[in-house]
Amino acid sequence: MSSTRTITVELGGRSYPIVIGRDLLGGGFDLGPHLAGSDCLVVSNETVAPLYLDKLMGNLSDCVVETLSLPDGEKFKTIETVSAVLDKLVSCKANRDTTVIALGGGVVGDITGFAAACYMRGVAFIQVPTTLLAQVDSSVGGKTGVNHPQGKNLIGAFHQPRVVLIDTATLDTLPDRELKAGLAEVIKYGAIADRAFFGWLEDNMPALLEKQADALAHAIRRSCEIKAEVVAADERESGRRAILNFGHTFGHAIEFHQGYGEWLHGEAIAAGMVMAAELSGLNDSDSGRLRALIDAAGLPGRPPAVGSKAMLNAMGMDKKVLRKKLRFVLLDELGDAVVTAEYDKSRLQQVLEAAD
Amino acid sequence: MSSTRTITVELGGRSYPIVIGRDLLGGGFDLGPHLAGSDCLVVSNETVAPLYLDKLMGNLSDCVVETLSLPDGEKFKTIETVSAVLDKLVSCKANRDTTVIALGGGVVGDITGFAAACYMRGVAFIQVPTTLLAQVDSSVGGKTGVNHPQGKNLIGAFHQPRVVLIDTATLDTLPDRELKAGLAEVIKYGAIADRAFFGWLEDNMPALLEKQADALAHAIRRSCEIKAEVVAADERESGRRAILNFGHTFGHAIEFHQGYGEWLHGEAIAAGMVMAAELSGLNDSDSGRLRALIDAAGLPGRPPAVGSKAMLNAMGMDKKVLRKKLRFVLLDELGDAVVTAEYDKSRLQQVLEAAD
Repeated sequence: MSSTRTITVELGGRSYPIVIGRDLLGGGFDLGPHLAGSDCLVVSNETVAPLYLDKLMGNLSDCVVETLSLPDGEKFKTIETVSAVLDKLVSCKANRDTTVIALGGGVVGDITGFAAACYMRGVAFIQVPTTLLAQVDSSVGGKTGVNHPQGKNLIGAFHQPRVVLIDTATLDTLPDRELKAGLAEVIKYGAIADRAFFGWLEDNMPALLEKQADALAHAIRRSCEIKAEVVAADERESGRRAILNFGHTFGHAIEFHQGYGEWLHGEAIAAGMVMAAELSGLNDSDSGRLRALIDAAGLPGRPPAVGSKAMLNAMGMDKKVLRKKLRFVLLDELGDAVVTAEYDKSRLQQVLEAAD
Repeated sequence: MSSTRTITVELGGRSYPIVIGRDLLGGGFDLGPHLAGSDCLVVSNETVAPLYLDKLMGNLSDCVVETLSLPDGEKFKTIETVSAVLDKLVSCKANRDTTVIALGGGVVGDITGFAAACYMRGVAFIQVPTTLLAQVDSSVGGKTGVNHPQGKNLIGAFHQPRVVLIDTATLDTLPDRELKAGLAEVIKYGAIADRAFFGWLEDNMPALLEKQADALAHAIRRSCEIKAEVVAADERESGRRAILNFGHTFGHAIEFHQGYGEWLHGEAIAAGMVMAAELSGLNDSDSGRLRALIDAAGLPGRPPAVGSKAMLNAMGMDKKVLRKKLRFVLLDELGDAVVTAEYDKSRLQQVLEAAD
């Protein structure tokens, strides 16, 4: 059994640990001290619950635990599903000492966290992410929410978890396609904040794709460290936190036109990162390395043919539009991102034509 | 024209002014500096909009203003109505520099504030309360939210406004019954926190019922001062803020059984305060003064006949239930409230029998 590592997200009174290790779910890490009381609601989905719910229940044996299983898929990330979680909380008479636990990928975590944020104006919340993407990205930092028919993640709340429990053993059952989608966000961290980590990823991509435990543990740890640092400095995204959206302006437009679900989020982000790098006017060497790493991870390096006009229109609805001016996360070089409204408009047109 | 008074709710970076005066709506107080940008959505209802929307528009003449009118009534304080506000925000391509303005009573403010809290995980919000109850209570302190079929205000968020603009001229059109309902909350402030103010209310109740401007302005000002102080000390109700719920545990149970709407919130709170005072074992003199003042305000001093069992059951779903133990706001004497789980259980039974 490999060692357990803890990273702290420093947010004053709302600081919390991200605990990373193998076989933590069933009791390798004791959730007890992080619960608000003895009542819990575990929210999972029809895919993850059969695999890991029983294990997690072993960690909560001193508690009164209710469970709710959601349908699986991004298309259920709606206000209606949040309502269903709220109905469950009401029907089991959950109150202010109830802890809501999300067991699953990013969709389960986003929905469940938003419901925990809204129930009685906020009850305790724990993230137990079971996909690589959720482990390195969506479970950390307190962003919760759902999609609106007209735009991704338009409705939500900041609600920090009390602990993020990452049991890397849950990746054993993760389908390859979802593993790769998670690697898109891992690559993102190298691209925006750590050139050396980007180099490490180039060296270790085969090991990651083979799910070698040490390589995955290192990739998760370094990704969470970077995210924790960025979130601690700018919890509510008034500035620098926006660099975490590298590739997401384009990526969200792709997802919007694919109806949320055809492409996985990580796949859309991969193509989006290549587009954002192009808009950045990144030097040929760095640009080539980004394309090559995305390719090595088995991820798409260009958008589907949804049309450049449709892409631009969808981007008008993106949360990163500030004062009616499109803002982008661009790279000065690999490992160094900036948020800016200054960009080459003709180059944007050119970049979008990849979708024609 | 009487003078304008400003009270500040001290919440660090989220501090904001409550501005109280006559004829402020149309420009007597300039909202401009408090807007996030030049885009606004004003949410009102079918009763208030015809009376005051045009006036408010005069204050926003430099802005691009969209408007939305909701149906009037507590029964529309639902997640579905919040969805309608969110749909409007999406359809007018609101973004992070949009300011959402609530023009109306407590229901409009609660719904609109919750939508502002959820849209893009929080956009700027301004309260323009037009009922006495909203002016002295619901518009101040950042509590937003909606009802669930199983319980009042179960779903919501803390989202502080940027300014609360109280134009006392809006009370000119307020129906008497709603004026009285607002006075219930005014009486509450005296009962929980200011014995001298309670005495002032005893002396000035006839003037308040006649809508004498100076009396109303003083009552609103003192109520807002007390609320601002309590909220500043305990924004998220981890402790003392709960004293603001005096009478509300019983009151919410009454409202729940009346299906939200038969009794006004203030009427239910009036009866709830008498019940809570009785449970407190308040001395006869203070107890008599509370009953007499509620009676002088034309408010009910006892619950409707919904049944003591039904009341108790509804109270099991109240937000103030902590660790499965009922907590009450009780009075040591007029002007001094405590939050406690220590109460006389046989006396509770006796108090509830007023509903049989």
